[in-house]
Amino acid sequence: MFSTLKKWFIGRPLKSGAEGEGGLLGKMQALAMLSSDALSSIAYGPEQVILVLMTVSAGAIWWSIPIGIVVLVLLASLTISYRQVIHAYPQGGGAYMVTTENLSPKAGLIAGGSLLVDYMLTVAVSVSSGADAITSAIPSLHPYNLHISILLVLILMLMNLRGLRESATSLMIPVYLFIVSTIALIGYGVIQILTGHLAYNATAHVGQTISGVSIILLLRAFTSGSASLTGVEAISNSVPFFKKPKAKNAASTLTIMALILGIMFAGITFLNYWVGVVPAKGVTTLAQMAQAILGNSPVGQAFFYIFQLSTALILAVAANTGFSAFPMLAFNMAKNKYMPHMYMEKGDRLGYSNGILTLAIGAIVLLLIFDGQTESLIPLYTIGVFIPFALSQTGMVIHWKRQYQKGFLKYSLANILGAAICYGIVLILLLFRLREIWPFFPIIGLLLWMFLSIRNHYDKVAAQLRLGGKIEKTSYAGNTVIVLVGNVTQVSVGAMSYANSLGNDVIAMHVSTEETKVKDAEVAEEFKHYFPHIRFENVMTSYRDIIQPTVEFVSKVAEEAKEKGNTVTVLVPQFIPKKHWQNILHNQMSLKLKYALRWHEEVVVASYSYHLSE
Amino acid sequence: MFSTLKKWFIGRPLKSGAEGEGGLLGKMQALAMLSSDALSSIAYGPEQVILVLMTVSAGAIWWSIPIGIVVLVLLASLTISYRQVIHAYPQGGGAYMVTTENLSPKAGLIAGGSLLVDYMLTVAVSVSSGADAITSAIPSLHPYNLHISILLVLILMLMNLRGLRESATSLMIPVYLFIVSTIALIGYGVIQILTGHLAYNATAHVGQTISGVSIILLLRAFTSGSASLTGVEAISNSVPFFKKPKAKNAASTLTIMALILGIMFAGITFLNYWVGVVPAKGVTTLAQMAQAILGNSPVGQAFFYIFQLSTALILAVAANTGFSAFPMLAFNMAKNKYMPHMYMEKGDRLGYSNGILTLAIGAIVLLLIFDGQTESLIPLYTIGVFIPFALSQTGMVIHWKRQYQKGFLKYSLANILGAAICYGIVLILLLFRLREIWPFFPIIGLLLWMFLSIRNHYDKVAAQLRLGGKIEKTSYAGNTVIVLVGNVTQVSVGAMSYANSLGNDVIAMHVSTEETKVKDAEVAEEFKHYFPHIRFENVMTSYRDIIQPTVEFVSKVAEEAKEKGNTVTVLVPQFIPKKHWQNILHNQMSLKLKYALRWHEEVVVASYSYHLSE
Repeated sequence: MFSTLKKWFIGRPLKSGAEGEGGLLGKMQALAMLSSDALSSIAYGPEQVILVLMTVSAGAIWWSIPIGIVVLVLLASLTISYRQVIHAYPQGGGAYMVTTENLSPKAGLIAGGSLLVDYMLTVAVSVSSGADAITSAIPSLHPYNLHISILLVLILMLMNLRGLRESATSLMIPVYLFIVSTIALIGYGVIQILTGHLAYNATAHVGQTISGVSIILLLRAFTSGSASLTGVEAISNSVPFFKKPKAKNAASTLTIMALILGIMFAGITFLNYWVGVVPAKGVTTLAQMAQAILGNSPVGQAFFYIFQLSTALILAVAANTGFSAFPMLAFNMAKNKYMPHMYMEKGDRLGYSNGILTLAIGAIVLLLIFDGQTESLIPLYTIGVFIPFALSQTGMVIHWKRQYQKGFLKYSLANILGAAICYGIVLILLLFRLREIWPFFPIIGLLLWMFLSIRNHYDKVAAQLRLGGKIEKTSYAGNTVIVLVGNVTQVSVGAMSYANSLGNDVIAMHVSTEETKVKDAEVAEEFKHYFPHIRFENVMTSYRDIIQPTVEFVSKVAEEAKEKGNTVTVLVPQFIPKKHWQNILHNQMSLKLKYALRWHEEVVVASYSYHLSE
Repeated sequence: MFSTLKKWFIGRPLKSGAEGEGGLLGKMQALAMLSSDALSSIAYGPEQVILVLMTVSAGAIWWSIPIGIVVLVLLASLTISYRQVIHAYPQGGGAYMVTTENLSPKAGLIAGGSLLVDYMLTVAVSVSSGADAITSAIPSLHPYNLHISILLVLILMLMNLRGLRESATSLMIPVYLFIVSTIALIGYGVIQILTGHLAYNATAHVGQTISGVSIILLLRAFTSGSASLTGVEAISNSVPFFKKPKAKNAASTLTIMALILGIMFAGITFLNYWVGVVPAKGVTTLAQMAQAILGNSPVGQAFFYIFQLSTALILAVAANTGFSAFPMLAFNMAKNKYMPHMYMEKGDRLGYSNGILTLAIGAIVLLLIFDGQTESLIPLYTIGVFIPFALSQTGMVIHWKRQYQKGFLKYSLANILGAAICYGIVLILLLFRLREIWPFFPIIGLLLWMFLSIRNHYDKVAAQLRLGGKIEKTSYAGNTVIVLVGNVTQVSVGAMSYANSLGNDVIAMHVSTEETKVKDAEVAEEFKHYFPHIRFENVMTSYRDIIQPTVEFVSKVAEEAKEKGNTVTVLVPQFIPKKHWQNILHNQMSLKLKYALRWHEEVVVASYSYHLSE
């Protein structure tokens, strides 16, 4: 039944070859596949700046303009330094790999652990922000924000378990719809302003003195704004998927993406300021701004709904990038023995199911902890992004130094700048937002400890299993077989025949509890009637549990057998009902016994199955 | 780790003898143990009448007085007829048994199924009503009604899994506290009225004509009021626990309980009417009435809190009766093979854990479906109670007829009356509340079908397992052993030694997938180096799944072995990490293989375990 359900939801198994080659990506396609995470950030990034400034007063919102300019500078420098990464790592340079190779495996683990957490946050932030976009358009859904977010995660999870083939073509629709509608909105807004149709309504002029605005506040707002830059690294991880010349194409795609992102960020920040958007419950600032620009005409309203839909769609696509990236990273870390092997197992549909499930559960837990509130997730998201950013930029500097020795400065300038900015953001977060980001550190510490313990365990296991030059084969004098007998039935008959063929020393063992004492005497008699020549042992116990006495008896027999030089096999007879589900109607004592006996050394546990025909 | 957690929550296992004899019950103790379900009903019964009448207008509430009188008549007749049950079934006459014995096993199953559902409803109604009592006293908790209800179910579940010994003495406190405080409240109210301190404030005088009041409305209100009578059967089920003369003591305890219940019901209905209570959101009518009578003086307020606490406590005790009754009934039905055997398994602490868990899950599901609203649960509860009531009363009439032939009318008069009333209530529910109670019928139909299928399955299994006079023992010509080999490690060495000792025909089998082809050639070579004399089979597959090809290969070998007259054993080598939890770090292929092979006929599946030392 489970397997039927699984087939229904997940689909039939695929052959290994079915993975297919997949065409390489042109620039337009690559932009669609790799930019959703970065571009969708503008759905929440500019709003986060305003939210921080609003903690002082609505007047402080004008500060989002200078902060926005700094964010744009940051974007430019990150773009330049990731172009460097592209050229240095044409095989794809994820932060985990760049850091592991150039700094140290442990630093790599910090980057890897941060990214694992970060992908969970990508999913959580994107779906919660997508839910915000939906409920901003349809206010009656507002109380169900959290439900919508969780539903989105589950849908993405199922799609990925089914083995969603992200064809670039299918992604071009939502991504370009978003780019076009956002640029159109901004363009229309600017034209309206220039033609005097959109009233200047800012809460305060740029430059106005607002009491309560401090450097700390501005730095906090700046870190929130830098959340708009999450996802810019995606292209540098995926150079191999580009058409030739790979590095060059990837670098220009990155530049195009950065330009679009920059225009959208600048436009939205400016228009937010111009129309005087103030954060309100249940509707995003982006939706408020769009509403203000588009007005209440039917055409304006229609476009508003299209815009909100395209925002929700690109956020869903962005969340989906987490579903591609997390299982791949988990796979790579499992290959290096830092994560459990199960992350290397491919599911029936060729996806790394365990990674997909872990990510979905992690994202849902985050949504539940933070009640689906985008702004509570952002600070953690930011630190999770900028730590691996900083590490990989540092790694790049080392990389250039190794490659070019003295002349490395020329190549590494962009990376030094990038690293400096990233460390700066991390520092600001540490100093002024520690209250919000502290959980990140115990989690990373825990992950690091976990990675190292797992590696240590695998190394030990491999050492113990390895064969030396010469191996020691044991030869046994005979075979002792213990058959567990409950009632004397057809199952026992088959099991005894099998045991007699296998062993020269066969013992039937029965456990008798206080409650079944009387009936057990009958069982003994019946057994002797049918199998007069087999040794029958009735083990008494004063507990109802029959597992403990069985294990003890087996230990005793195993010791005797060892002296004789015999193998020991415990034969557990069981009957198999015709239909799988009927198993729940029978007690699973044989399973429990086998589980308990498996911890017993030098004993082979065997199941004799009698199949019922109806 | 799981077992540690389990010990912490559930406690250490107990010896079988530890169940203890337990003293027999005196009348005062029996009242405490067996009356909580019935007495606690007045916390919601009278309110339900008012809620139905309110659907017309507040003026209609005076009709609760005549309806209350009819409920009292019903109480009297049920009391008389259950006194008859006590005398006829001194060994304890639950509806399931009385109906099975006197009507038919199928009718018994209807009674049993209804009761199983009913106990879930008992728990759900009692805890939701208990939550109402708590939040009426502490209004700030009102939004958490459902959470409190579910928490109460979980607490009761854990207590019962721990093996709560319901000593009658410990129950005397909440039950008598409730009886005393309720009677005191009613007495004080009546005195206040007589001394003119409690103003007459009824919404309309008795006898006043209220437009919209119809016979249908009154019948609906009456069925809701009869919910106050749930639980009156409890004493008749438990005659064996009474001190001698058992039947006589039980009968008088029933009478005492009915008197107390009658007084409380009458008093509350009358005072509700007098002070003019109108249902309000977030506070029960009982709490409103208590508040009105007790006033705002500090002493009055203190007593109000005590009264609410005692109400919540007795409701929790009433919910707990479900936790005693459900697992017992499930046990009895499992003994008769109508429910899965697992309901007969006692847990470590001598409770029927599966019954307790099923009940808790059922009650929580009901609470979630009905959003923890007491009044939505009541109609289902009423039909669930009165169907087994009606069936067992009918059973009693048959019982008397069998016993006394012609003169049976004298004995059965009370039961005929009881049955008639119960059928009447069922009929009214069917006619006028079908919209609320219909889910009961598909559920009962489903349960009935389930009971009969289960019985059918167990009968078939028993027939297939039974040994005839003569049994057929097989003797085998030899033993074929298939060893599954992944990599060549220490585990393989041990497994091969064991297999060589056991079988005269040993085959090592390895599955090679597209992805591992190259490595697999090395494995084959390595194997031949270490075990030159063993047949090595490399099975190729184009799926990544290695289970299917393994099963197919085993089938092929098994067929050959059968022709030779050999046994077939599949030996699955595995290594056992030092600590249980480390299992999650290794892929559970051996478990999956063993599970897949267990469906294979005439093949014994054995695990060779190599234990790692660190």
